[in-house]
Amino acid sequence: MEFDVIERYFKPLSFVSDARDFAIGDDGALITPPLDRQLVVVTDTLVSGVHFLPDASAYDIAWKALAVNLSDLAAMGARPAFYSLALTLPQVDAQWLSEFARGLADCASAYTVSLIGGDTTKGPLCVTITAQGWVAQGKALRRSGAQPGDDIYVSGCIGEGGLGLSLALAAKAALNDQQQQALLRLHRPQPRVTLGLALVELAHSAIDISDGLLADLAHILKASSVGAQLDYAAIPLTEAVKIWAQNQPMRPLQAGDDYELCFTAPRSARDSLTDLAGLLNLPLSRIGKVTPQLGLTIDGQAQLAGGYRHF
Amino acid sequence: MEFDVIERYFKPLSFVSDARDFAIGDDGALITPPLDRQLVVVTDTLVSGVHFLPDASAYDIAWKALAVNLSDLAAMGARPAFYSLALTLPQVDAQWLSEFARGLADCASAYTVSLIGGDTTKGPLCVTITAQGWVAQGKALRRSGAQPGDDIYVSGCIGEGGLGLSLALAAKAALNDQQQQALLRLHRPQPRVTLGLALVELAHSAIDISDGLLADLAHILKASSVGAQLDYAAIPLTEAVKIWAQNQPMRPLQAGDDYELCFTAPRSARDSLTDLAGLLNLPLSRIGKVTPQLGLTIDGQAQLAGGYRHF
Repeated sequence: MEFDVIERYFKPLSFVSDARDFAIGDDGALITPPLDRQLVVVTDTLVSGVHFLPDASAYDIAWKALAVNLSDLAAMGARPAFYSLALTLPQVDAQWLSEFARGLADCASAYTVSLIGGDTTKGPLCVTITAQGWVAQGKALRRSGAQPGDDIYVSGCIGEGGLGLSLALAAKAALNDQQQQALLRLHRPQPRVTLGLALVELAHSAIDISDGLLADLAHILKASSVGAQLDYAAIPLTEAVKIWAQNQPMRPLQAGDDYELCFTAPRSARDSLTDLAGLLNLPLSRIGKVTPQLGLTIDGQAQLAGGYRHF
Repeated sequence: MEFDVIERYFKPLSFVSDARDFAIGDDGALITPPLDRQLVVVTDTLVSGVHFLPDASAYDIAWKALAVNLSDLAAMGARPAFYSLALTLPQVDAQWLSEFARGLADCASAYTVSLIGGDTTKGPLCVTITAQGWVAQGKALRRSGAQPGDDIYVSGCIGEGGLGLSLALAAKAALNDQQQQALLRLHRPQPRVTLGLALVELAHSAIDISDGLLADLAHILKASSVGAQLDYAAIPLTEAVKIWAQNQPMRPLQAGDDYELCFTAPRSARDSLTDLAGLLNLPLSRIGKVTPQLGLTIDGQAQLAGGYRHF
């Protein structure tokens, strides 16, 4: 794609914090690793018509493409540092690109990550971001660390992304405040980066909720060879989500696009987690317990989990 | 995409060389940086119908998607280490995936890189790879290091990718050996990784030739604020490429897909480069000289260079 596109829209999003490093403008970017840190690498693709509606705004597509990657970094307890962008576009549209770059810039500056390179190509609209961050040696949060007796937590509220999608697919009637918030959560997820950083010292395991609470918790259970008992009433749902779920109570737990963190922590961390929730002004709800016996139950009823998507 | 696809086709391509690291199976991969090394990050996308013909074999698509990234690492003098794969596919086709994984495995094992993660999504066929490697602190090859008086070199032969493409687009008549070799060079480029590693101590600047010799050399000239004089007769062309170029002598210099390295080196490196060419069994042709005055001439005639694509 033309040099102009990169120079005009993407180069302004690029910076390096170390004088020995460089980003856009050579065959690759050069990054000096900080001492005693490990690199965390995550990749997520958004395809038009699959991960966002064909009429989604360029701003929201860019925000979400970066945010879902930062959410994966958060789940590992990593501090986001830089990202590469592969943008496939049907044509060069200045207005679209300018909005896309604005969405990317806003998300990147909210989480202090720098664009270090990528590729722009012609083709059906598709955005792949590889984001990278740093975590102290040996401190990365894993899916595999859950231990029997751990409490199970989720941050924020569950099911808003799913409600948002159903609202986006429906004809847009007047939406109430909570419904509008759900739409915003779908389009502009807020990756729980600060929470992830704090959990490095508190949690035994973590994952971000992209495919639905049940499916993602099941990844933790499988990787840790444990089971879980959940208490439905403890799962944080807004009033709007409760109404949406009134005939299908599992709906918010199976819908994806939450981008909250699900994590397990020992009982000894309860007070610290209460303090942390206050500090971050973010609810951390204790929704159940890790069990030595395999399987996932809600209020005593066995559940089937969904399939994997990312790797 | 289903867990099966990852587990069956891609997990076997994943390994880590450090016991503290892990690849596929969590929210992200974890990599421990080697001491005193800098990270080099490159990204390239191949889109069906743009970067490869819609009837290209899955094996070749995979090989090329990885090889073009390794070529960028080579141009920086980096040792390839790992890569992430974002694969967008219209449907899950076991035969196609198995051939794709085989092509990826063959290229990855030829250059000792490990798949550490990625994303599989549904949509129009598109492959993005972000590849990463390590280079000794301060030793990365840059586009910006060319100095007046440097010799200009290219590895291998130029224009075979372009000839290969024109053969692939034409009805397939019987091809002679050199034409078949050109097709192979188009589909399965051989990134000059070992050459790049050796050039770290010998060259002042380097780039890989993906957009054509003239366009890519122009990147070096621009980044280094210098010019160049080339000697057409010194540019290495096979007989098949010479025939293809007989009415359009600039054709091989403007065609892309060479994935050779173009680099500049001081006169003092001539003997070492001759030795290196013998050691690698790879021609290193001295095709011209870096000049203090800007602009690019061939046999004294001024040339216009092409546009940028990667960033």
